[in-house]
Amino acid sequence: MDGAPPAARPAGLSAYVAASQALGLALLGAAGAWLGRYRGGVAWHGPLQLNAHPLCMLLGMVFLQGDALLVYRVFRREAKRSTKTLHALLHGLALAVALVGVVAVFEVHGAKGIPHMYSLHSWCGMAAFVLYLLQWLLGCGFFLLPSASSSLRRQYKPHHVFFGVALFALSIAVCLLGITEMLLFNIRDSYSRFVPEGVLANTLGVLLVAFGLVVGYVLTRDDWKRPPLAEELALSMDFKTLTEGESPSGGSQ
Amino acid sequence: MDGAPPAARPAGLSAYVAASQALGLALLGAAGAWLGRYRGGVAWHGPLQLNAHPLCMLLGMVFLQGDALLVYRVFRREAKRSTKTLHALLHGLALAVALVGVVAVFEVHGAKGIPHMYSLHSWCGMAAFVLYLLQWLLGCGFFLLPSASSSLRRQYKPHHVFFGVALFALSIAVCLLGITEMLLFNIRDSYSRFVPEGVLANTLGVLLVAFGLVVGYVLTRDDWKRPPLAEELALSMDFKTLTEGESPSGGSQ
Repeated sequence: MDGAPPAARPAGLSAYVAASQALGLALLGAAGAWLGRYRGGVAWHGPLQLNAHPLCMLLGMVFLQGDALLVYRVFRREAKRSTKTLHALLHGLALAVALVGVVAVFEVHGAKGIPHMYSLHSWCGMAAFVLYLLQWLLGCGFFLLPSASSSLRRQYKPHHVFFGVALFALSIAVCLLGITEMLLFNIRDSYSRFVPEGVLANTLGVLLVAFGLVVGYVLTRDDWKRPPLAEELALSMDFKTLTEGESPSGGSQ
Repeated sequence: MDGAPPAARPAGLSAYVAASQALGLALLGAAGAWLGRYRGGVAWHGPLQLNAHPLCMLLGMVFLQGDALLVYRVFRREAKRSTKTLHALLHGLALAVALVGVVAVFEVHGAKGIPHMYSLHSWCGMAAFVLYLLQWLLGCGFFLLPSASSSLRRQYKPHHVFFGVALFALSIAVCLLGITEMLLFNIRDSYSRFVPEGVLANTLGVLLVAFGLVVGYVLTRDDWKRPPLAEELALSMDFKTLTEGESPSGGSQ
């Protein structure tokens, strides 16, 4: 620890994070308004159970997943271990909420005798959900359990980051497919007349794309990445010295 | 020029680029098979003009756009100017092909009296096309015309790269929406019985996602980025010395 002041939050980051949260809340509000005003609301039993599906998927696979991705950009001065745990917990919560949404649609299909998994939405959606679960399990295994070696973590990390962003983008695309399916099953004949329900659902789609763009921008901007804290750098040097017999004053390997 | 040997192509890159091309050709083939076998083929006049739309958009906004993005990963030892020109030409060709696809759907809607721009597919699709055109114009202005200063280019480049990848992802999502629309307009009642047309179109959707993932992986992998050639480094140092009064042996600013 050299007593260097902690790095300030980069200019503009807070505004982008705030915009992402405003967009996330707006898209959840738009979904609630759509389901409440035009689709009879949401319930766990009966025909309204189908409406629990979009609400849970938007909350879990979009809003919570997006916020879990942003954790490292928002909490920049907290200990890595705490930030990492929050990242895993938020993704775990996202998965649990999404699981409820998956169960909802399977139960409704089962009750109505509609075949499962026939649409492109269901194919891509199931792929996104299963891969997201796998990514979470691998992430916990590599980064939270003490068993993975430091070099294994370094090798896996870029893949974890790439698939994290890719699965987030895929989740948003799957939600757009779900909106289109729902509109064409319910208002196919009036959709082209710009009825309010169609315009509202389209707006929800635009909010989803905007949320994805803002979160993606925050995540991928190089100078907004979380810098390692002074004690993490020191620890990493100590660890290198111990494991690789490198002199603390030596250059990189 | 220090006579250093040019950097070798990174291991694995060629295999991923080959996989992207195989997936791109497979998705074009799947689209051709779908339109040819189940939708009556493609023509410019009459009702089959509508089928020109998906074919042009897949070729322009997905395959050619993806290949234009890959140019810097594939041509690693060619002069930057040539690679840049090829990048701009491929994106320009993609835009021209996509424009034909946009005209096709507007003409069909006009002839049939169907309102324009009412669906989520059309909202997102038009946004993707207009932003892609804007990105191309800005890219040509900043990087091909000699008027933009070096520091302006450096500031704009990360945004150009982010929006390039984001618009590519959005284009793929829009194609998935188009597939779902086309299926629900044509085979809504038989889609859930896993009819061959539905399975083929879903497979096309999966190929689109796979193409996007492979291209995205190649683009974002840090150690696969095009390293600057020796002469570019030398030129950049000379330019810095001239413009910033920096000593050639001095550290970075």
